[in-house]
Amino acid sequence: METSDSKGIVPGADHAPFHKPTFIIANLVHHMMKSNLHYAFTAKSVAVIGASRNPGKIGYVVLENFVKGNFRGKVFPVNPNADTILNMKSYPSLSAIKENVELAVITIPGEMVPKAIEECGKKKVKSVIIISAGFSEVGNQVLAKKLQKAMEKYPQMPVIGPNCLGVLDTRSGIDTLFLPRYRLMRPKKGGISFISQSGALGSAILDWAGSKDYGINKFISYGNAMSVDEADLLEFLINDRETKVICIYLEGVRNGKKFFQAARKYAHVKPVIIIKGGQSDAGGKATASHTGSLAGSAKVFDAVVTQTGLIPAESMREVFDYARVLETEPHPKSNRVQIITNGGGYGVLTTDALEGSALTLARMGEAFTKPIIAASPSYAVIRNPMDLTGDADNDRFLVAIRNALADPNVDSIITILLFQVPTLDSDIVEGLSELLTKRKKPVLIVSAGGEYAKMHMKLLEKEGIHTFEEPVDATQAMHALTYFHQRKRK
Amino acid sequence: METSDSKGIVPGADHAPFHKPTFIIANLVHHMMKSNLHYAFTAKSVAVIGASRNPGKIGYVVLENFVKGNFRGKVFPVNPNADTILNMKSYPSLSAIKENVELAVITIPGEMVPKAIEECGKKKVKSVIIISAGFSEVGNQVLAKKLQKAMEKYPQMPVIGPNCLGVLDTRSGIDTLFLPRYRLMRPKKGGISFISQSGALGSAILDWAGSKDYGINKFISYGNAMSVDEADLLEFLINDRETKVICIYLEGVRNGKKFFQAARKYAHVKPVIIIKGGQSDAGGKATASHTGSLAGSAKVFDAVVTQTGLIPAESMREVFDYARVLETEPHPKSNRVQIITNGGGYGVLTTDALEGSALTLARMGEAFTKPIIAASPSYAVIRNPMDLTGDADNDRFLVAIRNALADPNVDSIITILLFQVPTLDSDIVEGLSELLTKRKKPVLIVSAGGEYAKMHMKLLEKEGIHTFEEPVDATQAMHALTYFHQRKRK
Repeated sequence: METSDSKGIVPGADHAPFHKPTFIIANLVHHMMKSNLHYAFTAKSVAVIGASRNPGKIGYVVLENFVKGNFRGKVFPVNPNADTILNMKSYPSLSAIKENVELAVITIPGEMVPKAIEECGKKKVKSVIIISAGFSEVGNQVLAKKLQKAMEKYPQMPVIGPNCLGVLDTRSGIDTLFLPRYRLMRPKKGGISFISQSGALGSAILDWAGSKDYGINKFISYGNAMSVDEADLLEFLINDRETKVICIYLEGVRNGKKFFQAARKYAHVKPVIIIKGGQSDAGGKATASHTGSLAGSAKVFDAVVTQTGLIPAESMREVFDYARVLETEPHPKSNRVQIITNGGGYGVLTTDALEGSALTLARMGEAFTKPIIAASPSYAVIRNPMDLTGDADNDRFLVAIRNALADPNVDSIITILLFQVPTLDSDIVEGLSELLTKRKKPVLIVSAGGEYAKMHMKLLEKEGIHTFEEPVDATQAMHALTYFHQRKRK
Repeated sequence: METSDSKGIVPGADHAPFHKPTFIIANLVHHMMKSNLHYAFTAKSVAVIGASRNPGKIGYVVLENFVKGNFRGKVFPVNPNADTILNMKSYPSLSAIKENVELAVITIPGEMVPKAIEECGKKKVKSVIIISAGFSEVGNQVLAKKLQKAMEKYPQMPVIGPNCLGVLDTRSGIDTLFLPRYRLMRPKKGGISFISQSGALGSAILDWAGSKDYGINKFISYGNAMSVDEADLLEFLINDRETKVICIYLEGVRNGKKFFQAARKYAHVKPVIIIKGGQSDAGGKATASHTGSLAGSAKVFDAVVTQTGLIPAESMREVFDYARVLETEPHPKSNRVQIITNGGGYGVLTTDALEGSALTLARMGEAFTKPIIAASPSYAVIRNPMDLTGDADNDRFLVAIRNALADPNVDSIITILLFQVPTLDSDIVEGLSELLTKRKKPVLIVSAGGEYAKMHMKLLEKEGIHTFEEPVDATQAMHALTYFHQRKRK
């Protein structure tokens, strides 16, 4: 799959049969830019250019995040009109800071940004995040050009933004999101990283993921993508050891070829889930006025997905259902699913959902169904879907799942646990936890209901067992997991 | 749409050009049966045949529901081996009760049920619910035949079941669900009624609806449908003034023609949302072993949906999203939706979702966009989707929604409110509540996030404003609402 020009190329440059010196230099510089990108997530010294004493200002909120959050490095407020901010010494300019600065976060008004970039370049800042807006997204092409020129002087310095929320790294504590913590919950640490072209959408999702207790590693809102774009970020996250799964909200890309090549190269290395805005005609037009990028039709996107192995999703629920399963579930050998249920209706609905996917019903071997039949009443249906019926207790479930795990004819398991019936009790959580530790096959649980069911779903989640409210949700997640590993093997 | 034989016909009887006397009598009896069905929901005197002193028994739980729940009528425990149960006088047999009994709930072992039905008939009980199992669903056709014979002697007495959970009526307090309240939350009163062929699925959904605070009117798990079937229940709920929306989980029907005719006659009278199990080949086979009914392919079901106006759903989330919107939202005149957002990405995703439905983007008139433009910064996009941008405050939203409500070019509104941004505050709830009281157009809200966003979504729900986490969910619900009213007008 690897193409000759996929090892780092200037955006937009064509593949050249003979590498001219200027091309090689540009290539090298781009390499340096990419190798400096990690400072946006790992910097141990950060300057906030535009740090403010006014709690209503972005420059205050960003600084406060660094001071009051988990960040353990040095923080330098930069503001010519203040001596101290948040009890810290404030610097009149970047050059007034004697120490090295690895990351600069810029929150000053747009028209002052090009000059600040020049200062960052001179100071040899490694990475820059421009939160400030006021460029092409509001039609100010003159200012955008000016910024572009300033950035081009320091091509080894990666710049995220402008017009973005920037970065949240749950491990390093770097957090440039200028939205108050009471409005935007910060999620816990985890292996899912999320790239969002849309800031507001990204913030809502991050907040939602936090409330769902999903673990996030890195979040990047990259705004106008004047320097660092989605392809750079994708490559960065592919090489980032802490990131296990990558999610992307994308409306359109500036350099389609570059993104396509990156996706084709990397989508089989780690799971890359994509939710694409602007696939419809009207959505595409809306995209043009939102992020100013060309959206491309649903057909084009479908073709890209098929050719690259990107995993498409249609809602944020799907994005994170896929991501959490792909992060931690073992690899299914193939697509044969055993369904085990204590509610016939849910077994039927899961079977229906499964047939709409690339999954298929497993046929368990007799040696493995025998012990289940022995542990079940005569009216239980030990086939697929396997209906243990409404009076199934913990033991009947555990016997069934144990045998499905052992049967080589089964690649993965979807189990429906309805907690409304009195025979199933809380011990099933411990039983499942024991049975599923170090499992070699993916097992997803469907459960639905009120407080009692939800409590058990939470307990299962704490044991690393993924739960879903709807058969179709679990089935789609299993499909995404199976699809990724099948493509990876090819 | 009304057919000549749709006014009450013996199940399975063909349309007869000349009504023979026996046909007329059968027809009359069936009318009586149907007119007695309401006692299963409204009875003021109930006998629990098989009432038990043992808290582990179904006969105990059912009796306890009548005693400790909202039921205000008379309750008669029937058990030959007990003098008192739950501090109430117990009767050795139904005939030992001197007073009238309007409803009998049977919880005794299956083989004793035919005799109990005869006793019910002799006692002139109006309606019967058989909870007991052990009939055709476990292959005991002999017992099923015996029960059939007993029931045929009293054709005017409707029997729900056997092998079911029976009935929950949130208004009368009749509640035969034998699942403990701590496992199965009882939902609050409302206008949504739910018919489920599957007991376990029904119970999980009821529990889930309770936890979501959705209001339920009647719930019926009808099991083997030996007497009362889905078509009877559909007709009953259509005529039930308290039921505003009907939801059905169905795997297959015994009498396809009867159900089809009922659906075609009634699906435009009240919204009837249907989730159909067993549409796939494998799902159909699973259905056969679950409820013993013929499922019919997805193609057949699609044709039925198109010809009747039933509203199909693919998950329980969809069922209740459609139901709650259809219960309370005003009728959209047509399918032109205005999207209003403070997050561009969500506007784009809503537009994409909308294009996959029968909905279309409204084009607001200049007279109505003018005041919105005046209230917005230059970079706001006052088109459709209307992006008020991330710094939109309450007033900007209210001006936009007020004008969209007033514009005759707009039939319905989907508004995205992202609460992560600091400019939108809690007063928007009061503002929207005032603006949307007695609204003449449906308005649905999309919002997503953690605690802060969820709190506001709950506050909006309390004001009768429906909220959704995903653009695609709100769009599908708006589609269902529009579809129903468009068909109704035809």
